[in-house]
Amino acid sequence: MATLQDIGVAAAINFLTAIAFLLAFAILRLQPLNDRVYFPKWYLKGIRNSPRGSRRALFGKFVNCDFRTYLRFLNWMPAALKMPEPELIDHAGLDSAVYIRIYLLGLKIFIPITVLSLLVLVPVNMTGGRLEHTKDLKFSDIDKLSISNIPRGSQRYWAHIAMAYAVTLWTFYVQYQEYKIIAHMRLRFLAAEGRRPDQFTVLVRNVPPDPDESVSSHVEHFFCVNHPDNYLLHQVVYNANKLAGLVAEKKSFQNWLVYYQTKHERNPSKRPTTKTGLLGLVGKTVDAIYYYTDKIERLKQEEAQERERVLSDSKAIVPAAFVSFRSRWGAAVCAQTQQSSNPTIWLTEWAPEPRDVYWENLRIPYVELAIRRLIMAVALFFLTFFFMIPIAFVQSLANIEGIEKVFPFLKPLIEMKTVKSIIQGFLPGIALKIFLVLLPTILMTMSKVEGFASLSSLERRSAGKYHLFILINVFLGSIITGTAFEQLHSFMHEPPTEIPKTVGVAIPMKATFFITYIMVDGWAGVAAEILRLVPLITFHLKNTFLVKTEEDKEQAMDPGSLDFATYEPRIQLYFLLGLVYSTVTPILLPFIVGFFAFAYLVFRHQIINVYDRKYESAAAFWPGVHRRLIIGLIISQLLFMGLLNTEEATDSTPMILVLPILTIWFHWFCKGRFESAFVRYPLQEAMVKDTLEKATDPTLNLRSYLQDAYVHPVFKGGLLKPPVIDDEEDALLVATKRTSQRGSKIQSDASSEVGVTLP
Amino acid sequence: MATLQDIGVAAAINFLTAIAFLLAFAILRLQPLNDRVYFPKWYLKGIRNSPRGSRRALFGKFVNCDFRTYLRFLNWMPAALKMPEPELIDHAGLDSAVYIRIYLLGLKIFIPITVLSLLVLVPVNMTGGRLEHTKDLKFSDIDKLSISNIPRGSQRYWAHIAMAYAVTLWTFYVQYQEYKIIAHMRLRFLAAEGRRPDQFTVLVRNVPPDPDESVSSHVEHFFCVNHPDNYLLHQVVYNANKLAGLVAEKKSFQNWLVYYQTKHERNPSKRPTTKTGLLGLVGKTVDAIYYYTDKIERLKQEEAQERERVLSDSKAIVPAAFVSFRSRWGAAVCAQTQQSSNPTIWLTEWAPEPRDVYWENLRIPYVELAIRRLIMAVALFFLTFFFMIPIAFVQSLANIEGIEKVFPFLKPLIEMKTVKSIIQGFLPGIALKIFLVLLPTILMTMSKVEGFASLSSLERRSAGKYHLFILINVFLGSIITGTAFEQLHSFMHEPPTEIPKTVGVAIPMKATFFITYIMVDGWAGVAAEILRLVPLITFHLKNTFLVKTEEDKEQAMDPGSLDFATYEPRIQLYFLLGLVYSTVTPILLPFIVGFFAFAYLVFRHQIINVYDRKYESAAAFWPGVHRRLIIGLIISQLLFMGLLNTEEATDSTPMILVLPILTIWFHWFCKGRFESAFVRYPLQEAMVKDTLEKATDPTLNLRSYLQDAYVHPVFKGGLLKPPVIDDEEDALLVATKRTSQRGSKIQSDASSEVGVTLP
Repeated sequence: MATLQDIGVAAAINFLTAIAFLLAFAILRLQPLNDRVYFPKWYLKGIRNSPRGSRRALFGKFVNCDFRTYLRFLNWMPAALKMPEPELIDHAGLDSAVYIRIYLLGLKIFIPITVLSLLVLVPVNMTGGRLEHTKDLKFSDIDKLSISNIPRGSQRYWAHIAMAYAVTLWTFYVQYQEYKIIAHMRLRFLAAEGRRPDQFTVLVRNVPPDPDESVSSHVEHFFCVNHPDNYLLHQVVYNANKLAGLVAEKKSFQNWLVYYQTKHERNPSKRPTTKTGLLGLVGKTVDAIYYYTDKIERLKQEEAQERERVLSDSKAIVPAAFVSFRSRWGAAVCAQTQQSSNPTIWLTEWAPEPRDVYWENLRIPYVELAIRRLIMAVALFFLTFFFMIPIAFVQSLANIEGIEKVFPFLKPLIEMKTVKSIIQGFLPGIALKIFLVLLPTILMTMSKVEGFASLSSLERRSAGKYHLFILINVFLGSIITGTAFEQLHSFMHEPPTEIPKTVGVAIPMKATFFITYIMVDGWAGVAAEILRLVPLITFHLKNTFLVKTEEDKEQAMDPGSLDFATYEPRIQLYFLLGLVYSTVTPILLPFIVGFFAFAYLVFRHQIINVYDRKYESAAAFWPGVHRRLIIGLIISQLLFMGLLNTEEATDSTPMILVLPILTIWFHWFCKGRFESAFVRYPLQEAMVKDTLEKATDPTLNLRSYLQDAYVHPVFKGGLLKPPVIDDEEDALLVATKRTSQRGSKIQSDASSEVGVTLP
Repeated sequence: MATLQDIGVAAAINFLTAIAFLLAFAILRLQPLNDRVYFPKWYLKGIRNSPRGSRRALFGKFVNCDFRTYLRFLNWMPAALKMPEPELIDHAGLDSAVYIRIYLLGLKIFIPITVLSLLVLVPVNMTGGRLEHTKDLKFSDIDKLSISNIPRGSQRYWAHIAMAYAVTLWTFYVQYQEYKIIAHMRLRFLAAEGRRPDQFTVLVRNVPPDPDESVSSHVEHFFCVNHPDNYLLHQVVYNANKLAGLVAEKKSFQNWLVYYQTKHERNPSKRPTTKTGLLGLVGKTVDAIYYYTDKIERLKQEEAQERERVLSDSKAIVPAAFVSFRSRWGAAVCAQTQQSSNPTIWLTEWAPEPRDVYWENLRIPYVELAIRRLIMAVALFFLTFFFMIPIAFVQSLANIEGIEKVFPFLKPLIEMKTVKSIIQGFLPGIALKIFLVLLPTILMTMSKVEGFASLSSLERRSAGKYHLFILINVFLGSIITGTAFEQLHSFMHEPPTEIPKTVGVAIPMKATFFITYIMVDGWAGVAAEILRLVPLITFHLKNTFLVKTEEDKEQAMDPGSLDFATYEPRIQLYFLLGLVYSTVTPILLPFIVGFFAFAYLVFRHQIINVYDRKYESAAAFWPGVHRRLIIGLIISQLLFMGLLNTEEATDSTPMILVLPILTIWFHWFCKGRFESAFVRYPLQEAMVKDTLEKATDPTLNLRSYLQDAYVHPVFKGGLLKPPVIDDEEDALLVATKRTSQRGSKIQSDASSEVGVTLP
């Protein structure tokens, strides 16, 4: 068992790690060389220019020599807090602004609870005096501050029950206020938005096949008949998945070509070579530049053929279409109503933003969708429950006794006091962390297989899966298997009726493990986030080998975006831990508050300076966040009930049973009150916007505005230079935006008359 | 424990009871005197006339003397089956026609399962030979045919697992087909329907208060702005609850007046008297005729005042309205979309049929609704779980040993073999039945408090509550408390780990109890249903004391209607029992099949000849029926899993775990595929009907057609004679219909001049 000293050592290590990361960040971000890694958002906005373009010394272009700036190495923190929220929404989008409010919500919930819990429960627990009289169970100082120290059947449990009520009611209050604010923010954001194609457009899926008509004319006839006054135009969807694949492949070859050309330029005496086999490692050696030029040429032809085939072949048209209406009102009506008596055809939903469309999934028919979802549900079940095995194994290793048993020769090393503390404080958290890094990609792939039609819904869906996984494996898995290994010995030698009681006692005893976890994942993890090691390395590699022009440098810059599907469920774990331990081991709460405060700071900085939004869903994810918080609340209440039950405070059960019932009702109430603001678009709002637009812009040609809004990005690519294509299929749309920004920037560059030098 | 002989005696008793009921029915229904009790539907249809109007002997008007008809006393059975389904829908409505299909569904599911289970599982169980070698547990012959007879860990369990798969898959198939058929029937029914006000009308609730406008003009302005092309007119809703109360009170006094007048006419020498106190039992003695005439006169004045107040006082207008549109398309759009960004105001839903509206609930605001539902949920919880106590008590009495303990002096009587069989076969079922009779009214009141706006939704909601109650109290309560009392002794003397295994074994051992229950509730209960004892007595009482004219006689006739909220959850219990015991004690299945077949026959007869529909919801209840069937299926699978687990066929758990997952998916699939046909009205259908109507009836004045469609029945009453008011508030609408039918009937009577002969 970890003692208070172990926790202290672990806290010190993690605190120092975090400080080291922050220092590294402070130094790295001041170097002009890294400016595009740490401030890409401002480049995309066109506000910041290559610092190397200024009239400084050559060395100064790469390294910051102004030592005064180093002294203020933490000054990004107040800067991150300075931007007011409306400006933040304008700058980073509503999704990002609302995302960081989740951390703020954590602070709002847990700061009062922490104060109350430390003031009330810690004294009550400390003077309980039960553990001193127990001999069989090992315990630590932390446990003395927890509910484990209260004797069975004691009247002191009423303090904990009152605390459970206080936690629940306070959480209700804060959650309700937050939901209300965010619903309001969303409505205001949507109302203030300018004209956007998705306001007029509905995505129609599962267009039924018609023997006499093409998909296009079938759609047209259907909507002309059933929405005669509102229908404007429609765009069919091509199955351009293969074409997109070719484009992506071509782009990869082009990168290689540029790499070898650069190599050749630097060393003109030697022609670079490559091998034709796997990854250029095996096979015949050939001249690399010729080889890739040839390959690209062939792909270009293939691409042109495929492009022609897709556009001419009627089989390449999938049974889905983007249907646009004359008014927002017409689109709102069509998106919310059922078109046909067969609910599996003519399915309508709001069209996602053009950037947000996930094109690959539009073709999937209804029955296939149902089967895909079944298979993915089963797969998720297996994934969730079979991951238990490796985690249990690693957890058992992370126990000093376990390691000594498996590697007896390590015993003398481990028994050293400092090493022991390090292992116990650090290892379990790290092991879990490595597992978790692998997971989000798998879950996102599973969501894609399920067939959702927009990136935002894919992310929301993945977040739900990841949350389930974390619940079962990180939270329950850590409590139960950890317990199993520790308590096995005493289990074997006590009557079976004692088992549930021992498990109940184990929940407070896992507090030390979770404190370590919060420090590793929460503190050091967030500090690592701000350092952006991976993008930093990638940028410099690209910069060295691929970048020739200023434009290439923009391409090499990867601002990334908030990975909602990964981050949000992790935050939920902290909420869950805070709620579970608020009544059990209050000493854990300050660590939670520390996490929320630090993460709020860091992510506010990141969304201001780094992340670029891939799409804007106007905080459509909030109902999911709210629901998962409710789940956490209910779990905490049930665990607390189980714990008190084992502690023979039996007459408390009905008292606590009221809480989950209230919570379910509260969820239902909030759902009815606010959720529709996130899933539907009220007719009144649509009518107001329509009327306003008619008054302000009576000559608007909506048809030409909407004509090409929903064209698959590879076809838009035809209008631009092919090299600009990114590996994200929808990147071209972003590229168009960038191009225009670049245009204005080039002007400003030209006016400043500065030459571009290579790194 | 009940032996095979006990079951035989119980079966004989119940069979004889059923036969006695059927004989009584056969005799009673042939008497002209009772014709209006057993064939009211035909009177309402205007096809059948009072037999006493014909030119027979006076005696023949009351008693049927044609003895040949008595010989064919079962001939109603083929007659009930003869009417083809389309004609049945036309005659009795889709609700009734679909309701009896639930019994048919039971037959479709259980006949093949019964055959398979008897052929496969009975031989497997019979030769298991476990019970012969067990000494501690008491067992009966029934248990030898059940899964209890298979030794622990035997390979024979694979037969049961295969059976569980067969049951699940076959149930899926039948349920899917049935859902498909019924969705199709509903759509065809709706499409074939003539013009009805509810097709054009939307119920708007929670109209927000406006300081400058009345509710009426606020509604008009809102819909003129937001549905400019579709809005036609609206009708405000008055809070006429007090007025309706006055009308009902007046009607009751009028009945008493008629009663005393009749009494006086028969015995003119003596003025009838009554007392002014409670129920005419206490207080001052007064002349009854004067007393009631006076009372009625005063009520009439009060009613007139109240009527005026309601119509003039703006506070009597509730914040709800029926808004009608120019086309079905417009109404479909408004009903399915959200109007305001605040989802708690301007709530729109399809207007129920005028007959179906539950006027009292239209005024309830959103927040009050949420609180009411919370309170009712808690109340339902307590109702469900505190009913356990009396049931457990009665169950323990219904045990021979229990009775002997409580009433030791009865011992010699009970120990007689026949008496013992009767008690064991009859008592537990009867006790349960008495409890259940009290319940539906309470549940319906609770649903009314929850604030639903139509009678049909109230019934659906009550059915859900009743189903929960039956699940917990009748099904689980019978298994667990019964077990608790029987097994308590052996529990005390075995190690605690054995408890779950003994409970698992108890499930098959309750089979005899449920067989008895099926016979009492299913066989005899259904036979009692056809006898209609309560309406028979009521009719004759009314006939003797109140009826003076032919019109009064129509009023005295009470066809009643299918009480969906009570009957459907009871059927679900039979489905559940069949599914649970199909793999455990197959000998129970023939009893289930017998119930479904008999009930199908009886209810088909009843909906043809007796019941009159209060409203028509076009089978909107089917998704609920389907959902409850799915719940039954999942419960049966989980119980089977628990049972096999205790039987140490442990490696079977993952095999069976597949079944509930598949079931949940199946439910989700069916929901997506069919449910929307029951809750939404597709635009395509609306457009087709609109277009057709425009072509066939271009001069239709929709405004005048819809003007008075949704007026509170007490206001319609002003146009008619007050005495016609029924105690059902919406009965007047029915009365108007009846009046017109009666008119045509009188014509046809006059033209045909033929006496009606009796069956």
